[in-house]
Amino acid sequence: MKFDPLFKALKEKSKVVDEAIFDLVPEKEPKVIYDAARHYPLAGGKRVRPFIVLMATEAVGGDPEKAIYAAAAVELLHNYSLVHDDIMDMDEKRRGRPTVHKIWGINMAILAGDLLFSKVFEAIAKIPTDPKKVVRVLDVISKTSNELCEGQAMDLEFESKDSVSIDEYMKMISGKTGALIDASATIGGIIGTDNEEYIQALSKYGRNIGIAFQVWDDVLDLIADEEKLGKPVGSDIRKGKKTLIVAHFLENANEEDKKEFFKIFGKYAGDVQGEGIIEEDVQEEVKKAIELLKKYGSINYAAEVAKELADEAKKSLEILPESEARRYLELLADFIVEREY
Amino acid sequence: MKFDPLFKALKEKSKVVDEAIFDLVPEKEPKVIYDAARHYPLAGGKRVRPFIVLMATEAVGGDPEKAIYAAAAVELLHNYSLVHDDIMDMDEKRRGRPTVHKIWGINMAILAGDLLFSKVFEAIAKIPTDPKKVVRVLDVISKTSNELCEGQAMDLEFESKDSVSIDEYMKMISGKTGALIDASATIGGIIGTDNEEYIQALSKYGRNIGIAFQVWDDVLDLIADEEKLGKPVGSDIRKGKKTLIVAHFLENANEEDKKEFFKIFGKYAGDVQGEGIIEEDVQEEVKKAIELLKKYGSINYAAEVAKELADEAKKSLEILPESEARRYLELLADFIVEREY
Repeated sequence: MKFDPLFKALKEKSKVVDEAIFDLVPEKEPKVIYDAARHYPLAGGKRVRPFIVLMATEAVGGDPEKAIYAAAAVELLHNYSLVHDDIMDMDEKRRGRPTVHKIWGINMAILAGDLLFSKVFEAIAKIPTDPKKVVRVLDVISKTSNELCEGQAMDLEFESKDSVSIDEYMKMISGKTGALIDASATIGGIIGTDNEEYIQALSKYGRNIGIAFQVWDDVLDLIADEEKLGKPVGSDIRKGKKTLIVAHFLENANEEDKKEFFKIFGKYAGDVQGEGIIEEDVQEEVKKAIELLKKYGSINYAAEVAKELADEAKKSLEILPESEARRYLELLADFIVEREY
Repeated sequence: MKFDPLFKALKEKSKVVDEAIFDLVPEKEPKVIYDAARHYPLAGGKRVRPFIVLMATEAVGGDPEKAIYAAAAVELLHNYSLVHDDIMDMDEKRRGRPTVHKIWGINMAILAGDLLFSKVFEAIAKIPTDPKKVVRVLDVISKTSNELCEGQAMDLEFESKDSVSIDEYMKMISGKTGALIDASATIGGIIGTDNEEYIQALSKYGRNIGIAFQVWDDVLDLIADEEKLGKPVGSDIRKGKKTLIVAHFLENANEEDKKEFFKIFGKYAGDVQGEGIIEEDVQEEVKKAIELLKKYGSINYAAEVAKELADEAKKSLEILPESEARRYLELLADFIVEREY
């Protein structure tokens, strides 16, 4: 299969990154906070962001050995944001297991997220390269985590808004998802080279595949095979999640269709298997909402946006010398908008 | 008055630090998260930690101008931890104003704390000194914020424990309060000098006054003048807060006295003015609990510990050359255990 080499490489690189992660967040006293902090890193995940760091360093001719702690840092940052976001979103499951706050309570989850965040910076201080570069990595990562917070704040604000424009959505998702993948590629570049054009190219690549990843995720929620997806189709419609697809629909649909859509959108937020709710009826309604989105080409629009972003991402890499690492980054861009789950 | 020059210096230095703080956390979009993040820094506070950074740099012969962003960093770290701790402790007031989560809700308070934490590291990246030193400051601050999390985790654990030993208490408070004041003095030293003995001396000074500060706070809660303190005497007894005083009592009292104490201790956690509770009766009970603590010399014990720690702190400074900055640091140590509020 096309992506098998990518999966193999992801798995291989994740081993060395995990060593660094669990070196930073070991089993330790006070047990409760370290257990809570280790919960998501131990649950697996593909380690895509660390992989991007290492491949970026290699793709610009650098030594990926020097980037291992930077790779650990971005994964820790990702995990911290998952722990805190799960509290805010009241999510009960993550990677098939109960969320941190479901097991340890909200207080310990806040604290475990804080500890993971703190460990991001301990990791950065350990990057074995020119201190000037370490300070630059620090600057990138701190500004990235500002962006994560800003993006999440916008996302929380969206919940109480009736409508969200395409521009607002793209800005939010650029912060919430694009920034960290941008940072991953950028700091890989910083560690590997002094060529600013290469670093900028990697930054663009990361920002674009980051946004593409989220947009494609939202598309999959509506078109994917339920078995592959592992959740019912249209769960975002049930929850009333404002995606690029919904933003496009709201900018284009007539008043009547919008009214119809809002009768269903977000109606089943919270417990999907709520009392008196018949799953078949819900499915019927969700289908109707999806038809409305299709009527205005909103799903296709989002799919196109994702594909274009992935293409642009690959194009930015063209100035880098050809290498195995660059091919992996290109393959990753393809995977992001070709995956079915 | 003895401490007037100290107050004057604190006020003066706070101006330049505040400029850096509000340069990092300006009025900005998304408004809601920046407003929430600015809430505590805007509410004032004496800026003791930044003052220690600046005085430490000066006391070892360095240029305090170079330490301004480091000073901003420790104040931001302090404020981040206040925002998150207030959520965990369900506190409703801070510096006379509603807490962040009371105004903006728990989700936005988590996020505002995260943003402040992120800004700590943006501040560190801005320190205008040798990048090697910046990386060292980063290492100190990240390990300090680990300690803060660990200390707070221990403190949360104490709540569900029947008893806490003196050793456990000192360990907790060393992390929760000592670490950041230690770090403030240490990074001031790092920026100002290459003399490792000076840096170690400052580290010890900071750790000791940090612990002394909290212990003295707990003493004041029991012996201070209510008007000066601004809250009823014995509020920690009402809440069931495990302090060094309580730890000493529990290690020394006989079973009967412990039993009497636990009848009162923590009985008025939550709402002090609860339904059917007559304030005079509560005061009578709190008085009884204080008498029990006095019977075993527990309040005096803690007061002695605080004074000794402050003395030790001053002694560690003796290897530094005499200077105005050093005198301020000594005066601060005195203030910490002589203050009446």
